[in-house]
Amino acid sequence: MSDAHHPAERPLANGRTRIDFQTEPSRYRHWKLQIDGDIATLFLDVDEKGALFEGYDLKLNSYDLGVDIELADALERLRFEHPQVRAVVLRSGKPRVFCAGANIRMLAGASHAHKVNFCKFTNETRNGIEDLSEHSGLATICAISGTAAGGGYELALAADYILLVDDGSSSVSLPELPLLAVLPGTGGLTRVADKRKVRRDHADFFCTTEEGVKGKRALEWRLVDEVVPGSKFEETIIARAREFAARSRRGDAKEGIALAPLSRKFTPGGVDYGSLGVEFDRGARIATVTLRGPTAPPPASVEAMTSLGAAFWPLALARELDDAILNIRLNEFDVAAIVFKSSGDPAAVIAYEQFLDAHADHWLVREIRHLWKRVLKRVDLTSRSLVTLIEPGSCFAGTLAELAFASDRSYMFLGRREGDNRPPAAIALTDANFGPYPMPNGLTRLASRFLANPADLGAAKAERGKMLDAAAAQRLGLVTFAPDDIDWDDEVRMFLEERASFSPDGLTGLEANLRFAGPETMESKIFARLSAWQNWIFQRPNAIGEEGALKRYGTGQKPVFDTRRV
Amino acid sequence: MSDAHHPAERPLANGRTRIDFQTEPSRYRHWKLQIDGDIATLFLDVDEKGALFEGYDLKLNSYDLGVDIELADALERLRFEHPQVRAVVLRSGKPRVFCAGANIRMLAGASHAHKVNFCKFTNETRNGIEDLSEHSGLATICAISGTAAGGGYELALAADYILLVDDGSSSVSLPELPLLAVLPGTGGLTRVADKRKVRRDHADFFCTTEEGVKGKRALEWRLVDEVVPGSKFEETIIARAREFAARSRRGDAKEGIALAPLSRKFTPGGVDYGSLGVEFDRGARIATVTLRGPTAPPPASVEAMTSLGAAFWPLALARELDDAILNIRLNEFDVAAIVFKSSGDPAAVIAYEQFLDAHADHWLVREIRHLWKRVLKRVDLTSRSLVTLIEPGSCFAGTLAELAFASDRSYMFLGRREGDNRPPAAIALTDANFGPYPMPNGLTRLASRFLANPADLGAAKAERGKMLDAAAAQRLGLVTFAPDDIDWDDEVRMFLEERASFSPDGLTGLEANLRFAGPETMESKIFARLSAWQNWIFQRPNAIGEEGALKRYGTGQKPVFDTRRV
Repeated sequence: MSDAHHPAERPLANGRTRIDFQTEPSRYRHWKLQIDGDIATLFLDVDEKGALFEGYDLKLNSYDLGVDIELADALERLRFEHPQVRAVVLRSGKPRVFCAGANIRMLAGASHAHKVNFCKFTNETRNGIEDLSEHSGLATICAISGTAAGGGYELALAADYILLVDDGSSSVSLPELPLLAVLPGTGGLTRVADKRKVRRDHADFFCTTEEGVKGKRALEWRLVDEVVPGSKFEETIIARAREFAARSRRGDAKEGIALAPLSRKFTPGGVDYGSLGVEFDRGARIATVTLRGPTAPPPASVEAMTSLGAAFWPLALARELDDAILNIRLNEFDVAAIVFKSSGDPAAVIAYEQFLDAHADHWLVREIRHLWKRVLKRVDLTSRSLVTLIEPGSCFAGTLAELAFASDRSYMFLGRREGDNRPPAAIALTDANFGPYPMPNGLTRLASRFLANPADLGAAKAERGKMLDAAAAQRLGLVTFAPDDIDWDDEVRMFLEERASFSPDGLTGLEANLRFAGPETMESKIFARLSAWQNWIFQRPNAIGEEGALKRYGTGQKPVFDTRRV
Repeated sequence: MSDAHHPAERPLANGRTRIDFQTEPSRYRHWKLQIDGDIATLFLDVDEKGALFEGYDLKLNSYDLGVDIELADALERLRFEHPQVRAVVLRSGKPRVFCAGANIRMLAGASHAHKVNFCKFTNETRNGIEDLSEHSGLATICAISGTAAGGGYELALAADYILLVDDGSSSVSLPELPLLAVLPGTGGLTRVADKRKVRRDHADFFCTTEEGVKGKRALEWRLVDEVVPGSKFEETIIARAREFAARSRRGDAKEGIALAPLSRKFTPGGVDYGSLGVEFDRGARIATVTLRGPTAPPPASVEAMTSLGAAFWPLALARELDDAILNIRLNEFDVAAIVFKSSGDPAAVIAYEQFLDAHADHWLVREIRHLWKRVLKRVDLTSRSLVTLIEPGSCFAGTLAELAFASDRSYMFLGRREGDNRPPAAIALTDANFGPYPMPNGLTRLASRFLANPADLGAAKAERGKMLDAAAAQRLGLVTFAPDDIDWDDEVRMFLEERASFSPDGLTGLEANLRFAGPETMESKIFARLSAWQNWIFQRPNAIGEEGALKRYGTGQKPVFDTRRV
């Protein structure tokens, strides 16, 4: 991309024109990943001068998206590069402060769209910490000496265990409301209420108290799990880390694979990855993401897969899709709709699914499935209209078919195109569509789709492994519309034009409500209830107006509020 | 109140200065309630010239809050005045249109606070329709001939059964997004996804299609339950109503009680009801609601209770509290905090609880419990800080104690005030605190409070019937703080001052997140997720800006959108 003016409306630091989600430990400026046997320690030691945008310093271990991109990267490396690690310690590399939360000057100057997407990414990273513990047996201990304020405490809340020094000054706090007139935006309220089950009146006091809570009260109110004198801090960290490591259900793989840098080529019109291409039609406000099927059969063994490492097709494609989605979210705000296409042989995709199923207990296969799960959730939560076009020559089978079920609508080409002698489009289901990829609501996409009649889910399941043509897919309820050659172009064009003509905000709200029927989880609560309220508050004059709290923070002037309760 | 300028920022019609929630069938301008044996029919026949505010006509059976106040009143009358009714038909009194939904010109000109509270009230009324069916055995059949658009279809969605004429023009639609750039604000998206379980891609199509869906497709997509030719409309309505009435679990009471008009006295400083008083301290932005305990023992029999009718203390107090809360919500936007107090003898309150428990199966007792349930939910959902002060002379027992558990915090006076020889404050639990009053999340307030440790719920339950002093209440976790005479005044004052100093928006979001831990229900989804998104969208320039869709609707000019997706 060549936009000199980044859509976040303030210049990126160092002349960059794009937020990049790719990094690696040798390039970290804010985190240090230290590994000692089966215990990893992540030190947060933010480089004040390493802000993502111009115009603010990252004081007191405060963070912006750039800091969180490194954390997200470190978590991926723990999954793939360090399978021997069984517990993670999160702590500060600075004295007297754990983390001051999201940088306030960054927030005060960021566009609404950047703020909202910044919160979404940090939320996904926090959820990833919990997923790492729940599904990969890698528990996190957060060790707090000094202040853990706002987003700092919210980071701690994602851990399995919070240890706080009892020294009369170390504290946890969520001072967003009293200080800034906004909410803790990274799941704090939900985790206080639903994960730590803090009594609601205690939570009310805690969240309205600038200075937070420390020592014994923090423990009694369930805000932390243990308080220790400063003199015992180090030994307690080690003891707890060893305990969690000893209880870990992580396997006994000794050696990981290297997450090599993605191969990417940016052009003004798109991004090309190895197994995936993105094309932007900026006039029509469309990003077309084309997933390419495998070009070789699956490896002969898990050893061969491990040797392929990051080049193993399912892993490469998942990482590329993740990067592509994040790039659209944070750098291409004007994209109204993401169109998913694919090219390749569905039978070849099924062969990979069978390989993964045959080795489902191998640590690397498990991590690849979990990565796909998280990437697909990222798709679910992307605030753009999503549509999948299933055309002749496509390979929407198994995991790739999930994109059709994650989409707001899907169109499947019925029959052949005149002059095209390829076989008609087919879609194929595999076990991957019936278990390993729950949505944020805890249901698979197909279970969510067929809530009205669970028998439809059974009917779809019975067709696993078959190449389903458009008529069969329609009958099974797997696709929305199935136009033929006469109607296809017009129908798809009209849909995309219509989508681009609607209010982007209205679509965001509509899609957020229709995508997640059925049960709620802590995760869905964070992205639905909490984020929606935060979005609302993030654009109220009481927060962002000239006299609002975010603008006036640090000026010595008190904010002036419109006192009407809504 | 004497505000010449109503806070909704546009003048009320006919020189009124206050929105009044009290009405009765003889005063209805928009609804006709017809009762024929065990079947009631509610005809919507909106008086175009009967708008609540100046500046718009209620064309095409569109509605504003005034129309919905009549509907809410009619539903109460069905509960209390017509216990013999076993099914309700909702239909239009006008040809070719069922209901065009919320009036767009009203929305375009209303203040943000009015819009949000209008939606909240209409949502509560729709939930009340469902409660009527689920808990009082009074099912609703919605019979649609003509168009049911937007809020019109959302009203239908609250019914148990939707009947649609198949005449090539009668249709159901949710055109809010394509027409107005807002969401259906009265539960439509949640009910489409979660109640009717419409497949998400069908729902996406439906909610982005101005003209909606009719006939066979409406049935196939689960948007309606039956389609009939126009010639069979009347006979089908009667047949379905009879079927639902025959299956009704409603009791066989033949005679109801009259819901006499509330006795109210408005003064500049407050409102006085028979069993409840409201005082406004407008400088401090506080409304103090004092509930008065019974002045007489409970009646000797259910017959005596029925004779008392609307004067029966628990019923009178519930109706008064409901009116008081609604008055604050819609007429007193500047109130930051509602302070609940009570005066009376807790033993006398317990005597009433025992009377109600002893006659729990009597239809009137059941309806009174259900009314309290709904009123307490209204309190839970009121976007003001809620605090209960439990002082000497108060009577927070049983049902009244629920207000303390509905509050964001409670303060209980420890010991006696100097010079006050009344006994120290006491709080008392009864069965009413452990079942009949679930919150919108489906849990009782105490179960929600003690999520972390259900044993605490058992410990509280074991103390039923006892007068608990402040120390005991603290030990049981029933109150937040228990200051003594030395600290009480300062602590309470500082809390209220602090609350009034915070951003009203931030508090709204904070309280909406902390009040409802635990599970989600369709109801909680409507008020949390859907309403939060709607609040957000309701203040985005794409909806309400000068070039936004709400402002430009009907002008012939297309709206101009900021195309960035957030």
